[in-house]
Amino acid sequence: MTRIVNQFSKWLGAIDWDAFWGNVISIGIRIAILVVLYFIIKYAGRKIIRSFFKKYRANQAVSNGRADTLEGLTNNVFGYVLFFTFAILILQNFMNVTAIIAGAGVMSLAIAFGAQGLVSDVVTGFFILLERQLDVGDSITIDAVNGIVENLGLRTTQVRDFDGTLHFIPNRQIMIVSNHSRGNMRVLVDVAVSPTADTEKAMRIINDVCQAMKEHNKNIVETPVVLGVESSDGANMIIRVVGKAVNGEQLNVKRDLLKEIRTALIAGGIELPLPTVVTTPQTT
Amino acid sequence: MTRIVNQFSKWLGAIDWDAFWGNVISIGIRIAILVVLYFIIKYAGRKIIRSFFKKYRANQAVSNGRADTLEGLTNNVFGYVLFFTFAILILQNFMNVTAIIAGAGVMSLAIAFGAQGLVSDVVTGFFILLERQLDVGDSITIDAVNGIVENLGLRTTQVRDFDGTLHFIPNRQIMIVSNHSRGNMRVLVDVAVSPTADTEKAMRIINDVCQAMKEHNKNIVETPVVLGVESSDGANMIIRVVGKAVNGEQLNVKRDLLKEIRTALIAGGIELPLPTVVTTPQTT
Amino acid sequence: MTRIVNQFSKWLGAIDWDAFWGNVISIGIRIAILVVLYFIIKYAGRKIIRSFFKKYRANQAVSNGRADTLEGLTNNVFGYVLFFTFAILILQNFMNVTAIIAGAGVMSLAIAFGAQGLVSDVVTGFFILLERQLDVGDSITIDAVNGIVENLGLRTTQVRDFDGTLHFIPNRQIMIVSNHSRGNMRVLVDVAVSPTADTEKAMRIINDVCQAMKEHNKNIVETPVVLGVESSDGANMIIRVVGKAVNGEQLNVKRDLLKEIRTALIAGGIELPLPTVVTTPQTT
Amino acid sequence: MTRIVNQFSKWLGAIDWDAFWGNVISIGIRIAILVVLYFIIKYAGRKIIRSFFKKYRANQAVSNGRADTLEGLTNNVFGYVLFFTFAILILQNFMNVTAIIAGAGVMSLAIAFGAQGLVSDVVTGFFILLERQLDVGDSITIDAVNGIVENLGLRTTQVRDFDGTLHFIPNRQIMIVSNHSRGNMRVLVDVAVSPTADTEKAMRIINDVCQAMKEHNKNIVETPVVLGVESSDGANMIIRVVGKAVNGEQLNVKRDLLKEIRTALIAGGIELPLPTVVTTPQTT
Amino acid sequence: MTRIVNQFSKWLGAIDWDAFWGNVISIGIRIAILVVLYFIIKYAGRKIIRSFFKKYRANQAVSNGRADTLEGLTNNVFGYVLFFTFAILILQNFMNVTAIIAGAGVMSLAIAFGAQGLVSDVVTGFFILLERQLDVGDSITIDAVNGIVENLGLRTTQVRDFDGTLHFIPNRQIMIVSNHSRGNMRVLVDVAVSPTADTEKAMRIINDVCQAMKEHNKNIVETPVVLGVESSDGANMIIRVVGKAVNGEQLNVKRDLLKEIRTALIAGGIELPLPTVVTTPQTT
Amino acid sequence: MTRIVNQFSKWLGAIDWDAFWGNVISIGIRIAILVVLYFIIKYAGRKIIRSFFKKYRANQAVSNGRADTLEGLTNNVFGYVLFFTFAILILQNFMNVTAIIAGAGVMSLAIAFGAQGLVSDVVTGFFILLERQLDVGDSITIDAVNGIVENLGLRTTQVRDFDGTLHFIPNRQIMIVSNHSRGNMRVLVDVAVSPTADTEKAMRIINDVCQAMKEHNKNIVETPVVLGVESSDGANMIIRVVGKAVNGEQLNVKRDLLKEIRTALIAGGIELPLPTVVTTPQTT
Amino acid sequence: MTRIVNQFSKWLGAIDWDAFWGNVISIGIRIAILVVLYFIIKYAGRKIIRSFFKKYRANQAVSNGRADTLEGLTNNVFGYVLFFTFAILILQNFMNVTAIIAGAGVMSLAIAFGAQGLVSDVVTGFFILLERQLDVGDSITIDAVNGIVENLGLRTTQVRDFDGTLHFIPNRQIMIVSNHSRGNMRVLVDVAVSPTADTEKAMRIINDVCQAMKEHNKNIVETPVVLGVESSDGANMIIRVVGKAVNGEQLNVKRDLLKEIRTALIAGGIELPLPTVVTTPQTT
Repeated sequence: MTRIVNQFSKWLGAIDWDAFWGNVISIGIRIAILVVLYFIIKYAGRKIIRSFFKKYRANQAVSNGRADTLEGLTNNVFGYVLFFTFAILILQNFMNVTAIIAGAGVMSLAIAFGAQGLVSDVVTGFFILLERQLDVGDSITIDAVNGIVENLGLRTTQVRDFDGTLHFIPNRQIMIVSNHSRGNMRVLVDVAVSPTADTEKAMRIINDVCQAMKEHNKNIVETPVVLGVESSDGANMIIRVVGKAVNGEQLNVKRDLLKEIRTALIAGGIELPLPTVVTTPQTT
Repeated sequence: MTRIVNQFSKWLGAIDWDAFWGNVISIGIRIAILVVLYFIIKYAGRKIIRSFFKKYRANQAVSNGRADTLEGLTNNVFGYVLFFTFAILILQNFMNVTAIIAGAGVMSLAIAFGAQGLVSDVVTGFFILLERQLDVGDSITIDAVNGIVENLGLRTTQVRDFDGTLHFIPNRQIMIVSNHSRGNMRVLVDVAVSPTADTEKAMRIINDVCQAMKEHNKNIVETPVVLGVESSDGANMIIRVVGKAVNGEQLNVKRDLLKEIRTALIAGGIELPLPTVVTTPQTT
Repeated sequence: MTRIVNQFSKWLGAIDWDAFWGNVISIGIRIAILVVLYFIIKYAGRKIIRSFFKKYRANQAVSNGRADTLEGLTNNVFGYVLFFTFAILILQNFMNVTAIIAGAGVMSLAIAFGAQGLVSDVVTGFFILLERQLDVGDSITIDAVNGIVENLGLRTTQVRDFDGTLHFIPNRQIMIVSNHSRGNMRVLVDVAVSPTADTEKAMRIINDVCQAMKEHNKNIVETPVVLGVESSDGANMIIRVVGKAVNGEQLNVKRDLLKEIRTALIAGGIELPLPTVVTTPQTT
Repeated sequence: MTRIVNQFSKWLGAIDWDAFWGNVISIGIRIAILVVLYFIIKYAGRKIIRSFFKKYRANQAVSNGRADTLEGLTNNVFGYVLFFTFAILILQNFMNVTAIIAGAGVMSLAIAFGAQGLVSDVVTGFFILLERQLDVGDSITIDAVNGIVENLGLRTTQVRDFDGTLHFIPNRQIMIVSNHSRGNMRVLVDVAVSPTADTEKAMRIINDVCQAMKEHNKNIVETPVVLGVESSDGANMIIRVVGKAVNGEQLNVKRDLLKEIRTALIAGGIELPLPTVVTTPQTT
Repeated sequence: MTRIVNQFSKWLGAIDWDAFWGNVISIGIRIAILVVLYFIIKYAGRKIIRSFFKKYRANQAVSNGRADTLEGLTNNVFGYVLFFTFAILILQNFMNVTAIIAGAGVMSLAIAFGAQGLVSDVVTGFFILLERQLDVGDSITIDAVNGIVENLGLRTTQVRDFDGTLHFIPNRQIMIVSNHSRGNMRVLVDVAVSPTADTEKAMRIINDVCQAMKEHNKNIVETPVVLGVESSDGANMIIRVVGKAVNGEQLNVKRDLLKEIRTALIAGGIELPLPTVVTTPQTT
Repeated sequence: MTRIVNQFSKWLGAIDWDAFWGNVISIGIRIAILVVLYFIIKYAGRKIIRSFFKKYRANQAVSNGRADTLEGLTNNVFGYVLFFTFAILILQNFMNVTAIIAGAGVMSLAIAFGAQGLVSDVVTGFFILLERQLDVGDSITIDAVNGIVENLGLRTTQVRDFDGTLHFIPNRQIMIVSNHSRGNMRVLVDVAVSPTADTEKAMRIINDVCQAMKEHNKNIVETPVVLGVESSDGANMIIRVVGKAVNGEQLNVKRDLLKEIRTALIAGGIELPLPTVVTTPQTT
Repeated sequence: MTRIVNQFSKWLGAIDWDAFWGNVISIGIRIAILVVLYFIIKYAGRKIIRSFFKKYRANQAVSNGRADTLEGLTNNVFGYVLFFTFAILILQNFMNVTAIIAGAGVMSLAIAFGAQGLVSDVVTGFFILLERQLDVGDSITIDAVNGIVENLGLRTTQVRDFDGTLHFIPNRQIMIVSNHSRGNMRVLVDVAVSPTADTEKAMRIINDVCQAMKEHNKNIVETPVVLGVESSDGANMIIRVVGKAVNGEQLNVKRDLLKEIRTALIAGGIELPLPTVVTTPQTT
């Protein structure tokens, strides 16, 4: 038992308490100053960025989406740079951060392996911005995610799904970007009529509807035309109609076209497809 | 045989028994002190963290979910740091841990390879927190997992499935986070009526129901409206209705809407879709 | 021919036979001692571990599953450490193991590549234990494997399938752990009635059954309630009921609920869904 | 408190403010000059490239698509080289960029890992150009993307989908390029007649239609011929017809052929396939 | 022409023919001796292993499967060690094998990359043996392979499929081992009756059959019991029965149970499920 | 402001304009000479290759496909070697290419990572040629691509699809090559008759048809024979016939056989399979 | 202009034309000699190998397949070794091949990455041979490829598909080898009868057929027996029969058994399964 006490008192006696507490206080003060500085710079920075982009939008002829993208990204980059600068400054009080980052031991190697994902994120994000693949407000599809871009960050892109969900996609996950907000969109309607219907007449009626619609719907960029009989079997004959609409309006144009054609075909006496048997797979 | 004995006694004689036992006892004492210290610090630390977050929640305007997230993570980080600090201190009595970690031989390489998953976990977890992708209590989808976030740790995120299962997801497995608790959610109802029904009248009835519902249901943020005829075949005509509801209430609003529209359509004399043939695949 | 003999006798003559046999015997003795020691220590160690965990279970308030997990793991770790320590001690008599492990040639590199799977196993296993993701006896799902945990080892986890199969899963294969033994479980019943049935009355009957059942079945934690009409088509109207049950009893509660609701609905005169056509795909 | 003031004033006093501000101004001037230069060179470069390709197109016998591809790529490469040259020149004022790029620490390794995707993009893009796999305006299929090439860049290829979507494909994602704009395309029509129809007569009629069509449709490169009965069951007999059309016209030729053959078969008294039962899977 | 002759004779003249032929003969002799030695040692070794395992099986209480596994593996390891030892000894006569293996040039690197699969095989195989995941004769499932283990080698495991095919699986391909030969197996029978049948009576009949069967079939370890109504729709009501049987007998027990229950239900007047429509997809 | 001017004039003054312009001119001249040389050598090389292969084809007994393959490849290799030789010679005027290629910094590492795909392409392409897996004109399947080989290059293989599309496949993507142009091909016909038909008689008729066909169709290498009843259900009995045809003619032989057998069976009074219900999945 | 001429003549003047041409001729001669030597050795080697294997087959008791495998491989290895030896000898005249292979710059690294596939091929091929997983003539399944082994090379294995296609499989692609030519094969017949048939009688009839067949068909190794009722539904009752046949004859035995059992059942008055509705999915 005396052994334990000896050992312990030897340990305690070996500590220079004055230096210890002096050190603790000195480090505490330095950290406090750094934290205060961090919040001051952060607040000032955000303010400057906001006012800058206000002028940028007012003076120059940049699209709104682009300005939002750049403001979001500037905030994002500014926040990360500030955060990591002060994080390293504070950590420097406890350990030699530079040595770890520049070292070549196991830990450094593990960090390098682990951090490559992060670097990939930043590199990819950088090129997505530079090549203007995305702007805030664009309707896009990335992999299985589908929605409106809300924010383009250095590391993640935020996409708001049409059902309200917010997706966070690490930039390195973004391989093929399919941007639905770049130019006019196709309107494709497959009209089904009975296989015994008068094909020529049906095509004429459909073309008339398209022509009429083009005149009073300014969202139609290219008048839809009948391409021909796409396929035909015992129950249906499919007639394909293709046109172009203003970006974002293609679904509305399609719905209107579908309704108008249907009405016109019925009025013109063209038989619709044969009745179908509906099957529902069921499990209790 | 004498050879064996000689060999053996030579081995035994070569050991300095005094130093050996002295060493054993000295190491034992040091380990005992470390273990006691570990439990004291752990207990004190947990207490301090709890009281700190109690004040934090009382004083400041942080959301509850965020506070839970931060408290959970602080506990988690504190626990890991403490555990590994003392584990290394104790192991130091047996082998040169620093040398192994900083070394460059086969074992170090193997460790680096093996540990990169761990580093990826921590890096990803860190950014998930920093970018506020998740808060405790959020309803999320990660890959095939679907549920409520219970805990966000340095290495794993715990998600409680809606059926009660608890999923442990290593952070590096978290690629695309789909957060369903960020803003209003869409309500989409596809109403099926008979293809021979009066489309205009049906749409009018549905729109009336939506209007009426909006007035006495404050969970509806955006009045649902009829978009138009989505599709039509020999057995069904689908009319699509879209609106917005308060986050978390979208399913209830949808169910109510479905019931009300059905009742109104029947009352209004709109025929429902044709009866269907139900098929059940069977295996004995 | 003389050349062959010369060559051969030159080789034989170059060997110092005395030293050779002396060496062989000396190594043999050393190995014999090591093997005996190995079995002694193994036997003693197992005994100590068993008696320790006996006391541990008796004295302290640890769950049985946790104690089983720890005892299994302690045995597993002890066995591996002992085995590899003696394996290296024995191999040291034939080659310089340390040099190979610490070397940097082709073989070392190949070993490092090959062994990284092993390191991943141990690292993952360690964190699964530390984070209490699994206990022996838990019902879990890992990837496509489904069953009761039988043993949690340093390198592999053993899961007993419900059909009796024993699965050995290397720990590194364990990504998302879905633990079904942590808290109450949901009971979800989808009741199918005829689309022409009286919805309000059906819901009332179902709610009464749920209420009655809650009173005499103490495995129900949260009384099941009708959520509403989930969907409806020409053959079925689905009414969803959701409640909560004690962990492990959810399937029994569901079966009882299903039977009771069926009986009550028939008694209440609610029509069941339309008869279905059963289709069986056949191959001879 | 005095301690903090002391510490702080010590820090402030240690800074050589003259040198600091001199440095700041000097760097500011250098950056301003670089930025101005960047925009001048960029403007001039674009102008030179445009005028060069104008002459190139006028004087020489290069296809339009190839000229577009080369102009787009030259602009792209010029933009990247300029951007990175000036980015490095500007960054050089703040840190030693060369050292980081040439270094061998953790950060360099992480960069190397992260940047390999970029290098793969450039290498692949380079060979796609060199081997003329794509030209601007070609109709192509890459993986699941299908459309017209709009731009071939050093890092990404832009493909305009037929529905108007713009796809950005990183070049390294481009594995197998399927180019539909290189030579004549096959026209394949599967004609379905009743299994009880007179096969020989049907084939004769179809061959006559093909022959007649070839004469007045100059998009047909190779007269379609009947290959024979492809398959036959209780409801259909399939007769396959194969020919060749000018690139881009194969679908129109197919539609015309389908219509003409149908008309001729009906006129010739060949029975069409038996009526079919149409099944529609339905979900409400 | 004289140039060629000069060049050639210069080459020939530069060769020391005596040393060349001496070298060739000397190497030839050495290789011959090594080959003879190889076959002698191989023959002796196999004999010793066989006689050792004969005694091992006679004296000790090891299961037959385990003894087969160990004998197969010992032969396998002995064969590989012998083969590679002599292969290196023979190759040493032509090139410096050690230098290549220990080197760090391109070839070594390529070998290390290529050989990592081999190392993974051996490491995994080693642990499969140590953890007794497989024994010769076990019925197992590995990935998509299903059968009886025939041999467990250092590099490959041989599994005999139930249809007679022999699968060779490299050990590194073995991830999750599902061993069907470790303990009793579940017997699960889903009995289908008409949805209009008397449920209570049917359950009673089934339970009686199970009870009766348990008495005269000693392969049943746990009497099968009715769990309840699993599901119910317009054509079937499924009643689930679960019990346990001796390992390997579960399928026979299931078949017997199915036949007995069927007979009893028919005798008891319980209606069987409604007749089904069988559909056969057909292609000619 | 004066500061900026000073700075700027200092920069300008520091440049030795004479040396600068001299350098620019000198480099320009060297590049011009290299470009001219490049085109001369390229033109000459192509000519030599063409004339060489003309003789090669005339004089020797090599298959046409092989000669095409070799000529294409020689052109391809010659083009690449020439291009890169001159590219490096030209780039040497601007930077130290050798140093970059041989260096070991971040950029080199990134290049090595990025270029490994290229090396894999060349290595694989080399072995495909050496092992004669493909010849120009062969009908092959690689992964999902199906067609005729048009060109076999050092880096990519070009395959012309049967519908006219040209596929560019990087050689490293070529794993399993399935070559359909190496030897005779099987002809397999599954004849469907009614399950109530006279099996023996049907088989006899089919065998007679096969025998007769063999006599006047020299594309049949091995007379087709009836293997037996492959399967049988309520609607069809399938009789399998297998033979062999000259490579490339198997589909024609199959079509002829199918037609002849059908005619013979009808003539022989064998009932065909029962009429089928045709189902068409439909979406509007 | 004079500048260009100067520059050019300076370059030309700097070349020692004598040494240049001398070098060219000397290298040409050396290459010519090497090429001639290559063809001589290749011819001689092939001859020696052929004669050796002729004797090998005559004298010793090795299976034909094994001898084919070894002869093919010896030719393959001999060809590769010869080819690469001379390729390196010839290339040595132009560049320092050894330096490149042993170097550590970017190119070496790229080669190492690119060549690892090659090394994997050889290593895997080597073990496939050593472990006798394949012999020429074996019927095997590797991944999705199915056929008869034609050749086993150092780098690729050639498999002839049953339809005549020749597959080239790189050895590294060979993971699980399923060899169908190692021992007797199972014969499994599922006999379908009407659910209303007399089960006991049907089983008796089937067993009698099996017994009778065993007697006069020597390809049956194990008499097929009825296992019992495998499953039963409204349209079919499946009775499973299992036996064993000589390797390669299992399909013929199965076809015969199917025919005999069918005949016997009809003769015995057992009803066959109910008629089925055949559905054919159709697209025009």
